[in-house]
Amino acid sequence: MNGSRSALSRAITLIESFRPDHQDTAHRILDNCLQHRHDTLRIGITGSPGTGKSTLIEAIGLEILDNPANKLAILTIDPSSKRSGGSILGDKARMEKLSGRKDVFIRPSPSSGHLGGTSPKTHEAILLCEAAGYNIIIVETVGVGQSETSIESMVDYILLLILPGSGDELQGIKRGIMEIADGIAITKTDEASKKSVFHSKASCESALKLLPKKHPAWDPQVIPSSSISGEGIKEVLDSILQFAAFLHGNNLFEENRKKQLNQLFRSQVDLQLKQAFYNHPEISSSFAAIAAKVEEKNFSPLSGAKKLVEKVIRSPR
Amino acid sequence: MNGSRSALSRAITLIESFRPDHQDTAHRILDNCLQHRHDTLRIGITGSPGTGKSTLIEAIGLEILDNPANKLAILTIDPSSKRSGGSILGDKARMEKLSGRKDVFIRPSPSSGHLGGTSPKTHEAILLCEAAGYNIIIVETVGVGQSETSIESMVDYILLLILPGSGDELQGIKRGIMEIADGIAITKTDEASKKSVFHSKASCESALKLLPKKHPAWDPQVIPSSSISGEGIKEVLDSILQFAAFLHGNNLFEENRKKQLNQLFRSQVDLQLKQAFYNHPEISSSFAAIAAKVEEKNFSPLSGAKKLVEKVIRSPR
Repeated sequence: MNGSRSALSRAITLIESFRPDHQDTAHRILDNCLQHRHDTLRIGITGSPGTGKSTLIEAIGLEILDNPANKLAILTIDPSSKRSGGSILGDKARMEKLSGRKDVFIRPSPSSGHLGGTSPKTHEAILLCEAAGYNIIIVETVGVGQSETSIESMVDYILLLILPGSGDELQGIKRGIMEIADGIAITKTDEASKKSVFHSKASCESALKLLPKKHPAWDPQVIPSSSISGEGIKEVLDSILQFAAFLHGNNLFEENRKKQLNQLFRSQVDLQLKQAFYNHPEISSSFAAIAAKVEEKNFSPLSGAKKLVEKVIRSPR
Repeated sequence: MNGSRSALSRAITLIESFRPDHQDTAHRILDNCLQHRHDTLRIGITGSPGTGKSTLIEAIGLEILDNPANKLAILTIDPSSKRSGGSILGDKARMEKLSGRKDVFIRPSPSSGHLGGTSPKTHEAILLCEAAGYNIIIVETVGVGQSETSIESMVDYILLLILPGSGDELQGIKRGIMEIADGIAITKTDEASKKSVFHSKASCESALKLLPKKHPAWDPQVIPSSSISGEGIKEVLDSILQFAAFLHGNNLFEENRKKQLNQLFRSQVDLQLKQAFYNHPEISSSFAAIAAKVEEKNFSPLSGAKKLVEKVIRSPR
């Protein structure tokens, strides 16, 4: 809370760890952080690999930092993870105009087992960044991830990036991400023809009309943008700030945050229940044998499951 | 196993029950049924409300029963359930040419909490129908449902119904059902213009080309059909039987069934673990209070979850 970046880094490492003693320390740190939060804005940025997430984050980030009151934390997809679809360049080559600045904290988010999506741990990392004084948090994701730990459950605004002429509109609809987007940026317009940018914008706008509305009183904007030429960057940020003002003005901001905290709690209960169960020595020692008997039809999947569960759930007093 | 329909009905009712004593009996019945299965074919039929699932099932059902060796079980969506999107007509008005026949067993599937989708209980109902001597099982669903208990995990073939000119292609892509379809029927061609049928067929075929293939060596067919005029009905059934032969010929049939049994086991473990946890008196009595403390930021979601889980998981010996 005194602004030490290395303390923040170490705290996030503890959060990400699967070691029980690390988790205990992480729990204690988070418990002590929660009361110290201040007004923050959390922005989720999602899009298929190659849509230019890193460069757009850098361009918007520089725009954000034009206001000296802002401190920016960025939770990125770890580019070292092959399956995440992240950049093949090293971390240093990404966002080079931002990394090294004192008002910016960049951290590859844990992608293990989440394929470049978000996990409950990402939500916890956000809480830690906020406690460390960062008032704007950008979370990068490729949008996959289990529904209960979706990007939607941890940020205030979701920006979807669409590469013109790529069929990304279809991908966005397929993954359900277009329904939860609060705004769409058509990216890399400097590399695309005007016609293809126009076509992508029109497809997005008609898809948004077909899909159910996320907020009855908010129409997501579709903004052509380029991190190279600077086209649309200011407009994208303005639209985000406008949306935040809209949420605050309708008392939806705090309500939404409370709901998200409750969701995090519920997903933590399910997660810790599963962890405690599957890491339990009685389960690890008998799971495979019971599964084999089920496959050989010695007993039903129901009976097999019951035998396992009864091994570790304490009988009611 | 002596063919009593009422015994089969009662067994499915026990499977569907949430009462622990009923579940115990259901477990015992299933345990004794599993060894008695014979060669069967399970067909999943899915599509948005209004695509004509019931009438197509009836038309295909009559075609199936032209072979006197066949006995047909149909697990339908309960039309009394408002949210399932089932027909508003009563059960008797649906499939009237099939109901009453001795070689057909029709049962509304349990839709409670699954919004007309499938649940692990649907899988168990299939196993019971097979033990009772039904060799072809049709499962109707609107395709929603949790991923781990998807229709894909319990049938051999999935037929997707698309109403021409309805935008169902988009819905199919959105819900991920087009990727798992082994065939598509464009329905109610008697009510649609030739142009709109042609257009729907072409959209489906181009979507199938864009999406990843389910089986490298099988191209799903798109067949225009009408349960009124009879167009395409025989072709749809032929395509299903061809696919089953394809699976058998490549040793994929039994492999797939074994995998499905394993999946059912795993989803049963997770389900029964959650049930045992959330129904535990220590959890029901303290969940709300802990959730409230988390929302008030008295402690973190992680610590709150830990407090709950520790109440019921037995310590390792």
